Formats: sequence, C-alpha cells, structure tokens
Amino acid sequence: MTRPSCGIGHPAFDPSLYLVTDPVLCAAGGLAETVAAAIAGGVTMIQYRAKDRDLRSALAEAATLAELAKQAGVPLIVNDRLDIALAVDADGLHVGQFDMPPEIARGLLGADKILGISVSRPAEIETIDPAMVDYVGLGPVFATATKGDAAAPLGLQQFAKLRQRILLPVVAIGGIGHERASAVIQAGADGIAVVSAICGTADPAAAARQLKKSILDARP
Amino acid sequence: MTRPSCGIGHPAFDPSLYLVTDPVLCAAGGLAETVAAAIAGGVTMIQYRAKDRDLRSALAEAATLAELAKQAGVPLIVNDRLDIALAVDADGLHVGQFDMPPEIARGLLGADKILGISVSRPAEIETIDPAMVDYVGLGPVFATATKGDAAAPLGLQQFAKLRQRILLPVVAIGGIGHERASAVIQAGADGIAVVSAICGTADPAAAARQLKKSILDARP
Repeated sequence: MTRPSCGIGHPAFDPSLYLVTDPVLCAAGGLAETVAAAIAGGVTMIQYRAKDRDLRSALAEAATLAELAKQAGVPLIVNDRLDIALAVDADGLHVGQFDMPPEIARGLLGADKILGISVSRPAEIETIDPAMVDYVGLGPVFATATKGDAAAPLGLQQFAKLRQRILLPVVAIGGIGHERASAVIQAGADGIAVVSAICGTADPAAAARQLKKSILDARP
Repeated sequence: MTRPSCGIGHPAFDPSLYLVTDPVLCAAGGLAETVAAAIAGGVTMIQYRAKDRDLRSALAEAATLAELAKQAGVPLIVNDRLDIALAVDADGLHVGQFDMPPEIARGLLGADKILGISVSRPAEIETIDPAMVDYVGLGPVFATATKGDAAAPLGLQQFAKLRQRILLPVVAIGGIGHERASAVIQAGADGIAVVSAICGTADPAAAARQLKKSILDARP
C-alpha cells in the first residue's frame, strides 16, 4: 500500500475492496445480511452511506454495521455525517468536497480514526493535506448510476495520471465491476470501491470473492 | 429559574428570551446583523436553526454566530446537528424527538455543554432524563407558521399543565409574540423562544426589548 513519505502516522487499513452501501441496492436482501456476505467474500472496508435517510434510522443501521464490522475486523467508515460516525464510534469518516472540512473532521475524530476524501477534479488534489487525510477516493473512473450527483467520468488514463499526484492510498470508484478491476489496479489504484458490483448481484459473497481475486491477481 | 431537585449539575444559562433563527426570516436583514440587534435588545440565548441548508453554509453561519454570541456572553445553541455544534464549539445543542438521542449527544458534547430537547406531547415528557438534558422546549403553545412540521398547538391551559410535570427549565415556543408573552410566563414558562416576533419585525432590537420587558414584568 502506498504510504505518504512525510513521516506522518496513519491508522492501518486495507483499502483493497471497499464496499459502499446504497440505501436501496444494498438493502434489497437486508443491509446487514448483504454486508456480512460481502465481508465473508473478502471485502476489506465498509462505507455506510445513507444520504437523505432520517437520523434515527441511519444511526440504527450504522450501529448494526459497526458491530458487524468490528466482529469481522473490517473498518466501518461513515459517509458524510461526522455526528453518526462519532455516535456509533465508527472507525472513520469519508467526506466529499462539500462536506465537513478535513481539518475540522480530524480535530473531532482524533488521530486514530480513518479519514477519507472524495476527489474528482485535478484542482481538488492540490487541496489534500496528507496530515489530515488517510486515503483518497478518486473517481468516478467510469460512468455510474448509483450516485446521482457524480462528476463526469475520468477514464482510465486520466485516473492513472491523477493517481500519481496523490501521496496517499487511492481507492478507485465509479462504474468498476469484475471485468474492469484489473485495469484499474494496474492504473495505480490501491483498492476499488464498489456499490452495485456487490450489492446489485444475487450472490454478494461470490461477487466479492471474484472482485477480490481480480484485484489480488492484478497487483504487480 | 427552576432547577431539578436531583442534585445534578447543569451549565448556567438564562432562558428568558431565546431567539431561534429561521434561514429566511432572520436573514432578510442579514443573519449576523439581526442576531446582533436581537442580543442588543436583550435576547439571552440564540439557537442556530438551518434545516436543509448545505453543510458548508451552515458551518460558516454557525461559526459567525458562535463568535458573535461569545463576544456578547450569550450562549449559542445549534439545532439538530451535533457535528455542526462540535465543529464551531457551540455552547450547546437542541434536539427534537427524532434527532440524536440525548444520551448519545450528552456523551459526545461533554458535561459542560447545554442540551435542550423539544417536547410537544405528554408521553414525551416521561422520556426526559434530567441527568442528560438541561432544558425543555415545550410547544407549540400557539399555532406557528415558522415551523412546517410542528405538532398541534397545546394552548395555554395544556401548556401550564404539562409544564408542571417537567423538572427542568421550560422554554415556551410557538406563536408567542409581545402580547402573549406575559400569559405564557404566568403559565409557568421560564423563558420564551421566538422566531418571527423578532426576525419578522423591522426593528429586531426594539422587538427584543419589548418582549424582554413583558417577560420580566410578568414574573412573580
């Protein structure tokens, strides 16, 4: 895993296969059941994402996933909401460019939690402070249907180019399934974040297993 | 000010005249300017309420009001969002029945911050834990136009009856203007929360002064 050369300590985590939950797609077969199956299949990180969900439901779901992730030894990251991350003592927080600023989030999370940030444009890379952030979600690499407000796809070449300018572990996101996983890893991704490639399948454990194999096989 | 008899320490605050900001009504003359005028007129507490505002704008506004309130020696309470309250180091948080549960909020805020809860039904009073909460917002006393999801008005008699069952300071809210302030205080309110009675006027300082006088005059 790429580590910043600046000598700052980061919490340990394996970003290889990162499941981002979608409130509809991942709940069809039961949210906890789907996430548990995905972990059994080899998912190494979970992000609880529930935009527009009411707070009490989001808290309950995040707490369930936090417990499940803890037992599996896999980090649970909460998307966007620092209050939910703190309330369920999640392993970390993932913020977008318009969410809580990383320096404020880091101050409230403490040094031991994982903090990730989404990046989709070259100019946003300049603003990343590796002392505040632990990993970068870079994308969308390809077009995606599971995030309505996603930016234009980068494509593989632009992804590879931008990835080289980031001194932190990079998780590729956006339209990545089994068949594209190898190419994305070869383009420099430390891991792949998926929603539908796991949640949109009939067998989340098998889908995770296949993705994990593609990722591990593609590594140099 | 009514204090619980259970011997638990609460942070000191004066709930007499509590301005709750509305993102439209209080921003017409400039949010900070309106709040500053209200404080000059005698407001004793400020609640920053900005449902549906994007996080970065809400953070900026809350930070401005926190600074302003600090200089005036008046507590700034953030409505609903614990993350914003923590981010701007507000003096407290106000939660509704479907927001962050008080026991979780208290754990994350620490003992020194002010925590308030909204109550609008008799059954909700039973759930108040005076060890977790510092004050109760009880209402709507009268019909209100500034909160779309407000419950049915209690009326003055029901307000007085419910107030007696609450062992914490009670702030009356909902449709209370200058002419009704006395009656609400005489019905047992420790303070009055207003939006339009200050923000909906041409002279917020004068409106606050008049309200404050009504409140002080009505006290036994």
